[in-house]
Amino acid sequence: MNRAYNFSAGPSMMPLSALNQAAQEMNNFNGSGMSVMEMSHRSKVYIDIFDETVALLRDLMAIPDDYEVLLLQGGATGQFAAIPMNLSVNGTADYIDSGNFAAGAAKEAAKYINVNVVASSKADNYRYIPEVDPAKLNPNADYLYITTNNTIYGTRFDKLPETNVPLVADMSSNILSEVYDVNKFGVIYAGAQKNIGPAGVVVVIVKKSLLGNAMKITPKVLNWQLMAEASSMVNTPTTYSIYMAGLCMKWLKEQGGVAAIEKVNIEKANMLYNFLDESRLFRPVADKQFRSRMNVTFNTGDADKDAAFVKAAANAGLLNLKGHRLTGGMRASIYNAMPVEGVKALVDFMKQFEAEDARNV
Amino acid sequence: MNRAYNFSAGPSMMPLSALNQAAQEMNNFNGSGMSVMEMSHRSKVYIDIFDETVALLRDLMAIPDDYEVLLLQGGATGQFAAIPMNLSVNGTADYIDSGNFAAGAAKEAAKYINVNVVASSKADNYRYIPEVDPAKLNPNADYLYITTNNTIYGTRFDKLPETNVPLVADMSSNILSEVYDVNKFGVIYAGAQKNIGPAGVVVVIVKKSLLGNAMKITPKVLNWQLMAEASSMVNTPTTYSIYMAGLCMKWLKEQGGVAAIEKVNIEKANMLYNFLDESRLFRPVADKQFRSRMNVTFNTGDADKDAAFVKAAANAGLLNLKGHRLTGGMRASIYNAMPVEGVKALVDFMKQFEAEDARNV
Repeated sequence: MNRAYNFSAGPSMMPLSALNQAAQEMNNFNGSGMSVMEMSHRSKVYIDIFDETVALLRDLMAIPDDYEVLLLQGGATGQFAAIPMNLSVNGTADYIDSGNFAAGAAKEAAKYINVNVVASSKADNYRYIPEVDPAKLNPNADYLYITTNNTIYGTRFDKLPETNVPLVADMSSNILSEVYDVNKFGVIYAGAQKNIGPAGVVVVIVKKSLLGNAMKITPKVLNWQLMAEASSMVNTPTTYSIYMAGLCMKWLKEQGGVAAIEKVNIEKANMLYNFLDESRLFRPVADKQFRSRMNVTFNTGDADKDAAFVKAAANAGLLNLKGHRLTGGMRASIYNAMPVEGVKALVDFMKQFEAEDARNV
Repeated sequence: MNRAYNFSAGPSMMPLSALNQAAQEMNNFNGSGMSVMEMSHRSKVYIDIFDETVALLRDLMAIPDDYEVLLLQGGATGQFAAIPMNLSVNGTADYIDSGNFAAGAAKEAAKYINVNVVASSKADNYRYIPEVDPAKLNPNADYLYITTNNTIYGTRFDKLPETNVPLVADMSSNILSEVYDVNKFGVIYAGAQKNIGPAGVVVVIVKKSLLGNAMKITPKVLNWQLMAEASSMVNTPTTYSIYMAGLCMKWLKEQGGVAAIEKVNIEKANMLYNFLDESRLFRPVADKQFRSRMNVTFNTGDADKDAAFVKAAANAGLLNLKGHRLTGGMRASIYNAMPVEGVKALVDFMKQFEAEDARNV
């Protein structure tokens, strides 16, 4: 079989049991005579799959009944536009700029509303989550926008900001990896391709009371109210990716759910950060307080050595450790489906690389 | 194995060889140690898959170099908005209303520009393609919009309208089923889930000279110019559906390409229409001149009998023959992947049903 440890930031590793089940059911799902890919999205056999996927997400995240769960297309980037289009009443919102995707979301929103960036760590290469001066928050903002985990820079909000307006969170890279109280949010949304399932689905969890305000220029496929009324099927959804997301969530439930996987994720992250804190060759990038448990950024301080490490690791079956082009260095993305053994193998390999490097100096 | 004949209007049947290859490669694509679902969209291994898919489409449709090929999200319904947002310079376009999706496209476009419906067959339940009075065409229209095949009503443009403005065609339900000269179009677009591959991808083939005019309010994910510059990867595309589309197109190429499958499609459609024209129980719905080769609509004139037929057919492994809720009756969608044997099995079953019905009268 020979599966690699894939540290890609997304799309990324998926549970082997989910892949195996998908392969087995590929030509004939549960005696239906069809692949899930071939099913009409309006057929009972498919709607059962869809509903089970939504129910699993509701269960895993304890999503209250006063929230809609939508499975849409266009990725998180599509939602960068959908958020102001659907939520804006006063025409203004506050954004916390904690990374490249937060900045991109703010820029896209500025096409439609007035955007106030109330805090930014850009000047320090997004090494930390910027602190918000409460005086800067607009009490009439339609929402306050955050990115709970910053995939590129490897940082994470260690606590949620205090606010009286709806909190909108891009959770693309840490949804389902730790317990969040959904009640604290107006909207949680996430591209699927990290902790949920394959690319092509974006999950939007939105408080029902916030619906019904879409701008007239909102394309139907980005209109949350219309999608809620049509159970996410204003048009054909990404049927197979949704099925796969269901298989992945079934696996997560078997692992004990989000609280259980959070413990494993902390163990995995600690294993890697503890090594980085002690290493003489590798050094962590993000400020300690804000370290991501999903995306661990590090480097050697020498771009050539970084490149040599990434290449040697790939040859050893440890794939996609190259950092984002905006940061250079390395990044190990260790989402839910990355086993503890994968992180252990990475640390062992780093130790070995460090020892060899010491001999060569 | 026991595969059914699936007459769904979409998502719909896919070639068994494509499904088999996908199942076989599910856990480890070509020795990569990863599923295609797990691959970074920026990795060489995935970009090769993506590029091969685009190259296959260019080859199969003989798409000239002065056209961009985009693989986007949000379905054809997303493009209902994207078309006026990307193409409008004069703020006005002409639409031919030949069915429910054409009407939906016109309605969505009217959010952004002035829409003139220059011909409609709505009053006659869209039984035919309406003729256009050339005097009604606006020479300053940004484009003329058509739906080459009307999935719900089972009609097809038997010839393209004459126009001096760019022709924009929704080919969702007959792309790759017959030879079209791409040069005659400004834009061809199609949701994948009928003749291309699984749901979650919409193909946009656009003449390069038409790019660069997007409205400021265009969401990034619907902006063709930005997507063209980023090879469809402004954000993560629906990676696995694109891979599957490639496998399906490989199969189509092995069948001899579009010209070859067109002959098979004509044979399949004739087999069904010839029976319908002779049948004493079943009757075809669409006007003869405009009959679709992909979606064959028919009924018995008796709703209860229609329902009994759909149910009996399903029990015999002939699935999803129920007509759209807007039309009632039956619809057999016989896209590229429906084998001749499937249509033969349907005709045989209809003959048998008709004979039994005659005995019961």
